[in-house]
Amino acid sequence: MIMKRYFIITLALISNILSGQELQNFRPQPIVSPEIANGKVTFRIRATEANQVKLYGSWMPEYTSTETLTKDTDGVWSITINAPAPEIYTYNFIVDGVSKNDDANIFMQRDGRRFLSILLIDGPLTANYREANKRGNMDQVWYESPVIGTNRRMFVYTPHGYAASNQNYPVLYLLHGGGGDEDAWNNMGRACQILDNLIEQGKAVPMIVVMPNGNPGQQAAQTLLLPEKTYDRNDPAFVNLYIHSLVKDVVPYIEKHYRVIADPNHRAISGLSMGGGHTLAATNTYPGFFSWILPLSMGIQANQDMDAAFQAIKKAGYKLYWVACGTDDFLWESAKNLDAALTRNGLEHTFRVSSGGHTWANWRIYLNEFAQLLFK
Amino acid sequence: MIMKRYFIITLALISNILSGQELQNFRPQPIVSPEIANGKVTFRIRATEANQVKLYGSWMPEYTSTETLTKDTDGVWSITINAPAPEIYTYNFIVDGVSKNDDANIFMQRDGRRFLSILLIDGPLTANYREANKRGNMDQVWYESPVIGTNRRMFVYTPHGYAASNQNYPVLYLLHGGGGDEDAWNNMGRACQILDNLIEQGKAVPMIVVMPNGNPGQQAAQTLLLPEKTYDRNDPAFVNLYIHSLVKDVVPYIEKHYRVIADPNHRAISGLSMGGGHTLAATNTYPGFFSWILPLSMGIQANQDMDAAFQAIKKAGYKLYWVACGTDDFLWESAKNLDAALTRNGLEHTFRVSSGGHTWANWRIYLNEFAQLLFK
Repeated sequence: MIMKRYFIITLALISNILSGQELQNFRPQPIVSPEIANGKVTFRIRATEANQVKLYGSWMPEYTSTETLTKDTDGVWSITINAPAPEIYTYNFIVDGVSKNDDANIFMQRDGRRFLSILLIDGPLTANYREANKRGNMDQVWYESPVIGTNRRMFVYTPHGYAASNQNYPVLYLLHGGGGDEDAWNNMGRACQILDNLIEQGKAVPMIVVMPNGNPGQQAAQTLLLPEKTYDRNDPAFVNLYIHSLVKDVVPYIEKHYRVIADPNHRAISGLSMGGGHTLAATNTYPGFFSWILPLSMGIQANQDMDAAFQAIKKAGYKLYWVACGTDDFLWESAKNLDAALTRNGLEHTFRVSSGGHTWANWRIYLNEFAQLLFK
Repeated sequence: MIMKRYFIITLALISNILSGQELQNFRPQPIVSPEIANGKVTFRIRATEANQVKLYGSWMPEYTSTETLTKDTDGVWSITINAPAPEIYTYNFIVDGVSKNDDANIFMQRDGRRFLSILLIDGPLTANYREANKRGNMDQVWYESPVIGTNRRMFVYTPHGYAASNQNYPVLYLLHGGGGDEDAWNNMGRACQILDNLIEQGKAVPMIVVMPNGNPGQQAAQTLLLPEKTYDRNDPAFVNLYIHSLVKDVVPYIEKHYRVIADPNHRAISGLSMGGGHTLAATNTYPGFFSWILPLSMGIQANQDMDAAFQAIKKAGYKLYWVACGTDDFLWESAKNLDAALTRNGLEHTFRVSSGGHTWANWRIYLNEFAQLLFK
């Protein structure tokens, strides 16, 4: 009883500083933005001295589109728009010609070197992008890569219940695109939330998801400020470096340190864009190693002959070959080439044609779909 | 050989999109900022239409200080300053009165709801804030808290070599301050880097570091958009809720799922500000449970009588009682009260008096020091 009273007094002392970690950083946050209500979204920014404030959002039809905000007597600029269709969007203000994130919005994403404010419009499409009730852990794992010659970082998702069980799990190797890193699927792709939700709903098999860094010159995401090595892309020593590392460094590490079903039928590989290229290269170079093959928003050139590799895959056997691309994707033609080459070589496969382009909106949709197919 | 050639062709296709994840987000990044060279730092921002651009940095003497940038003919504003003393600073531009981060700088921190660009000046003080060669993993762990009644997230650092060893490790429970969350010590505190470096140098015992979320109304950091519960601080049911949860939910989870030496002599607790209050409350409420007690930038009020609790701690026994505070801290007087109360009660302790105030600069310095004392 006595100690309880002491703590109440201490709390009173603490409550003075509850709102800011370092006092010098303390600032009131009276602005609410974005505010979503009744099918409308209001964006607000305080900019007393600015001459003009505009808004760009990824839901707008053209990248050069903007909306102009109106200033009130307190110097707060605002605009209310009809809520776009359910999706995860990014947006920024443009204050006197300079792009700026929404300080009132804690929800941010990092796309390569760029941070952007997020607008999440709820709906059936985005339901699995929010936290599930049962959540898996996400480990930031450092491992030695003898193939590349550095210590490297990957993100490893383990499904809810992993720690408490004695079960062994299948593994999805999930690869990012150009400009991305090991955080891309976690951050922009909402991979943990999507897997958590699908597993909780009984729609996906509990699985481990491994998100490596596909840039062999990087030890980890650039946010860590580690030195980088630039490879000459014409150097034969560079070609397939990451692919070999994936098979010889990453997979063995995972199969040693996690409770994994360590056979091809319980290994899936998918990636978007450059990661789709890595998916093709890994499965072509190591036929039979991954039985679930899912290149996204990637393809091959019209004159590109992968017949020998595809025949080797067919001979080795596989469970699923699932190609996905949007009809507005600048790689749409190359995805059609891939589809045709698979058909010509007699590889049973799915060509998932979506609307839209080379976007995280599509990659989230694809993951949400194909994770339900894996290991069944 | 054939497959190698195929992959080269695929890479050529990929290289077109290497610089941007979503094409619509692609923008050139010609600006270098901050540029650190020859004892100077240059900051740059492109703002063609702006009338005035200023710079605020946390190294400046007053929070209201700023420096004014100069515009060149390309619309790039810049300023070169003498590099401040080695430390991790935050800074922002002020474009026509509106605060803005440095788009050219990928190195950011989040302090509560606020994102800020970071300037890292290298030197002996900051050497351990960069990545070590041997790095421990960091797990984002969800656990059930029956005491609080929600599923909650904590960050768990395991030292380099943990996965490969069969060893059991001591544990430091490291608590954040008001406005912070489970990411604060990881992000602003550089806790993983500091521990990695000290362990690699043989200066600290390999240990696990657990960083829970000290806001009982939160399941996790606000970046996850989970619903929050607001507690009435005068409600007796709220008092000590987090403290009980720490001892009854967090510690048992860690001792069950990690290879831990599960006794008081291998349990340390430290926290800054509100987390220092939590450190006091936890050790006062559960004397003998933690043998290493390290409240930072926190103290007690002049009339606050904790004698019974301190006598219970003395009777239970402990290894180290280490109080740290800066002489410019607004809690400096309360820290002196705590020092005096410990002395009056005959508790052997260290009062680490530093310069500076209620800042992450100090909390990083304290961690870098006291981690070398633990479990020896």
